[in-house]
Amino acid sequence: MVKWFSHKPGRIELPRLRSRSDILATEKVALAEFAPDILDFLGRAAYVQLMIFENLSRVIANAPTTAAKTAIGKAAELSLGKHRALVAEITQAGGSPAEVMDPFTEAFDEFERIARGSDWYEAMITAYLSAGFFDDFYVRLAKGLPTESHTRLATILSGESGESVLAEYLQAAIDANPRLDSRLAMWGRRLMGDMMLVARSALVFPDHTRSTEAQVEPVFTELIAAHTRRMDALGLTA
Amino acid sequence: MVKWFSHKPGRIELPRLRSRSDILATEKVALAEFAPDILDFLGRAAYVQLMIFENLSRVIANAPTTAAKTAIGKAAELSLGKHRALVAEITQAGGSPAEVMDPFTEAFDEFERIARGSDWYEAMITAYLSAGFFDDFYVRLAKGLPTESHTRLATILSGESGESVLAEYLQAAIDANPRLDSRLAMWGRRLMGDMMLVARSALVFPDHTRSTEAQVEPVFTELIAAHTRRMDALGLTA
Repeated sequence: MVKWFSHKPGRIELPRLRSRSDILATEKVALAEFAPDILDFLGRAAYVQLMIFENLSRVIANAPTTAAKTAIGKAAELSLGKHRALVAEITQAGGSPAEVMDPFTEAFDEFERIARGSDWYEAMITAYLSAGFFDDFYVRLAKGLPTESHTRLATILSGESGESVLAEYLQAAIDANPRLDSRLAMWGRRLMGDMMLVARSALVFPDHTRSTEAQVEPVFTELIAAHTRRMDALGLTA
Repeated sequence: MVKWFSHKPGRIELPRLRSRSDILATEKVALAEFAPDILDFLGRAAYVQLMIFENLSRVIANAPTTAAKTAIGKAAELSLGKHRALVAEITQAGGSPAEVMDPFTEAFDEFERIARGSDWYEAMITAYLSAGFFDDFYVRLAKGLPTESHTRLATILSGESGESVLAEYLQAAIDANPRLDSRLAMWGRRLMGDMMLVARSALVFPDHTRSTEAQVEPVFTELIAAHTRRMDALGLTA
């Protein structure tokens, strides 16, 4: 298991009293505990769908076949649908969509730029891995929002993302190009690091002690497991 | 009025017997008379929506504001929805979608490349003018298909295209940039010529006499009028 957030090496562990933070760290920690407020949540979740869409639209423009364009078009349509539904939630929560999304665009655009990769295959696996990862992340984080919002948002976010059709095209590409798998495996690992950093920036810590920082890694355990399953599905080592 | 298809100048009109073609030429000629077979029609109509989508997705990626991305996203979603519905019609008509679209991709991709323009505004007005033009064109052409297909296809093609939201952003840009209008007017006229050539390639002529060629221009009269209305709506001279 890769350690996504490095700890200082050689830190000396002194015996001390158990604080509330230590207790939390030894329990199963949920992402929901670090949920931001509703508008901050919606601004990020809505913009991330646009980012996924922009990556998919580039994948469509560069697709090698018409069949691939049509198939991947479905995934692009789904991400635009989620984006629009989340924008409607911003309005319903009393926010102005563009104002609510704007604080996050720079970081996501930067991620999108990096995540394009150097060719069609890398862009494809980004589309496949990132749609799943961010949907998972925001669904879990949404549990920390007021109940009436949470249920609606979970329905929007956990809707279909076109993952299976992307997997199908990736699998065909890997089968046809013997050396593609190691390159895509490497790309997937690198991308995971970048996605974790983007995701982490959404979390709100109750206080800024080192022990709350240390709680961050466990909350990603299930997301990492899901990422590993997506890689495994293509026969790639996560 | 610009003559889109030039006639040889100085042609001498000799008195002759009225042929069937001459009669048609003096009547109101409908595009429906030149409809190709159903699969050829669907292949073109489905791919043109992908082309419109690719242009829109580039417009979204380069949009100056988050609000514009969201608003134009709706238009992109609509074009993908039409594409998917038309692909389903290909399957229903017994065709293989990619095979049916493939003969037309090169010409449409070439149009898309030209129609991108040199900046965001030209790409925007292409999106605005071409979605309307091609929907109009295929709706009219569909009248020449068997009745049971025609009704369904007209419903798909005449569905919303996001034209009003594109017009809104274009109007704001024109209002803010005094010299933009003449550049966009010029671009709109050039684009119309390119769209007419793409549209014309779909038509099937019953025979290759000069008189059927001469019929082509009148069938575009209503499309040209609609294009002029779209230009007028932005205060641009068509």
